[in-house]
Amino acid sequence: MTQTMIAEHPLDRTLRLEPLGGGRYRGATTPDYWNMAGPFGGTTGATLLKAVLDHPERRGRPVALTVNFCAAVAQGEFAISVRLVRDGRSTQHWQVEMTQGETVASTASVVTGAERDTWSHAVASPPVMPPARDLEIMSSEGRNAWLQRYEFRYAQGEPTRGLASAEAPGQAVSQAWVRDLPARPLDYVALAALSDTFVVKILNVRGDVPPVATVSLSTYFMADEAALARQGSRPLATISDARTFKHGFNDQSAELWSDDGQLLAVSHQVVWFKG
Amino acid sequence: MTQTMIAEHPLDRTLRLEPLGGGRYRGATTPDYWNMAGPFGGTTGATLLKAVLDHPERRGRPVALTVNFCAAVAQGEFAISVRLVRDGRSTQHWQVEMTQGETVASTASVVTGAERDTWSHAVASPPVMPPARDLEIMSSEGRNAWLQRYEFRYAQGEPTRGLASAEAPGQAVSQAWVRDLPARPLDYVALAALSDTFVVKILNVRGDVPPVATVSLSTYFMADEAALARQGSRPLATISDARTFKHGFNDQSAELWSDDGQLLAVSHQVVWFKG
Repeated sequence: MTQTMIAEHPLDRTLRLEPLGGGRYRGATTPDYWNMAGPFGGTTGATLLKAVLDHPERRGRPVALTVNFCAAVAQGEFAISVRLVRDGRSTQHWQVEMTQGETVASTASVVTGAERDTWSHAVASPPVMPPARDLEIMSSEGRNAWLQRYEFRYAQGEPTRGLASAEAPGQAVSQAWVRDLPARPLDYVALAALSDTFVVKILNVRGDVPPVATVSLSTYFMADEAALARQGSRPLATISDARTFKHGFNDQSAELWSDDGQLLAVSHQVVWFKG
Repeated sequence: MTQTMIAEHPLDRTLRLEPLGGGRYRGATTPDYWNMAGPFGGTTGATLLKAVLDHPERRGRPVALTVNFCAAVAQGEFAISVRLVRDGRSTQHWQVEMTQGETVASTASVVTGAERDTWSHAVASPPVMPPARDLEIMSSEGRNAWLQRYEFRYAQGEPTRGLASAEAPGQAVSQAWVRDLPARPLDYVALAALSDTFVVKILNVRGDVPPVATVSLSTYFMADEAALARQGSRPLATISDARTFKHGFNDQSAELWSDDGQLLAVSHQVVWFKG
């Protein structure tokens, strides 16, 4: 007897949720996407989004996801509760909360909307980079686990310690091809996680990583299901940049493009830093 | 006997909240900032922020504000409830809800953080425009009330009907000096409202305004109190742009700068449009 084992992708293992009814779910952290002192924020956001997508009353695709990182997520179990705040004709508004014991670890608001074909117009253009195959894959050996769950091919601004300093700041902008590792067909939860794969910009600008934490992350999904299916597991073209570092916070914005030049998502965050 | 009447600014009148205790407030719409079919989203966001700022447990200044516009706000009273979700050492996370009867009209998440002086670095530069005094004030005669509560001096991309069409799309980008009208010293609630004064980009790009509604709006406050005080009531330098219009939604990003070249806030939104 031969048994074919289809291994579960680490992303799916990490996002696994047990529905408890009434918009409640149970999940647990995995080591797969571990960051410095907790799970990678991208998978936390994707987990909160998945709880909405799994909800029986959910109609339509994700349009907007804002994740607020309230407290460090500890290793182990967590509970998620989802509330449909408003069930409108064009959009549904959801509120999501992840708790561990009495602590609210993170909250999210999610907007879903029906798939529609409308007038469309592309204002922005994709980043101009060499094709992915012509760029070297960044080595993530010995680095945090989550970095090993993505294949990064930087065309510009690979985050590297010591290239810049507080006295001689480097450029914040990065351009890179990015995809899940192992390769995985693109869907909304993967895209949500990918939208947080832009390594903290202080590393590019200042050359070091003081204590940092994303405070709030908003992702707008501009692609329909068909566009994600067309992209499959090929690398996304991404560009990310920051505008200012001041009073212990910096902003950061990113675009995620399909390799046929469609803007799949835009993502913005504000990051707390210590020194 | 002479009585000096200090008239209340329309913004303060619109943001007036009666505290009911336990994080609950009562307010009411005013005609001052009326839009097409409800109050201007900027003042709705500022109202939700003000409820947090008025909360007795609030420490620090606003860092991030995400407003989700769930349903049209009807003329009349509304209730606001504020919940301190997480009281961390560096940041506080707040959840806010505005209701009218059984309907949740809007929700917001707010992050506040202590004022800190840290290493700082400006990556982006302010928009290059002629000084405000050299630009004409946009006429808002006969237009929605909220447009008459701001003084707009466009250097580029004044939103005008008929300049573009679906077949010959116009540019999305706008640069303008903007301030409250009547003039009013800048504070965080005014800045929150100002961050939504970028007229829907579909007007610039397509030359018309189909049914549209901001779905979700995130503003990051990069300035401390002192920077707002320095700016006073002088016009802010602003730039706003969109990246894509597709499947009935478009994104929009904006920067708000002091006239001495400090980035005061960045703001992003996703907008639903009909046709």
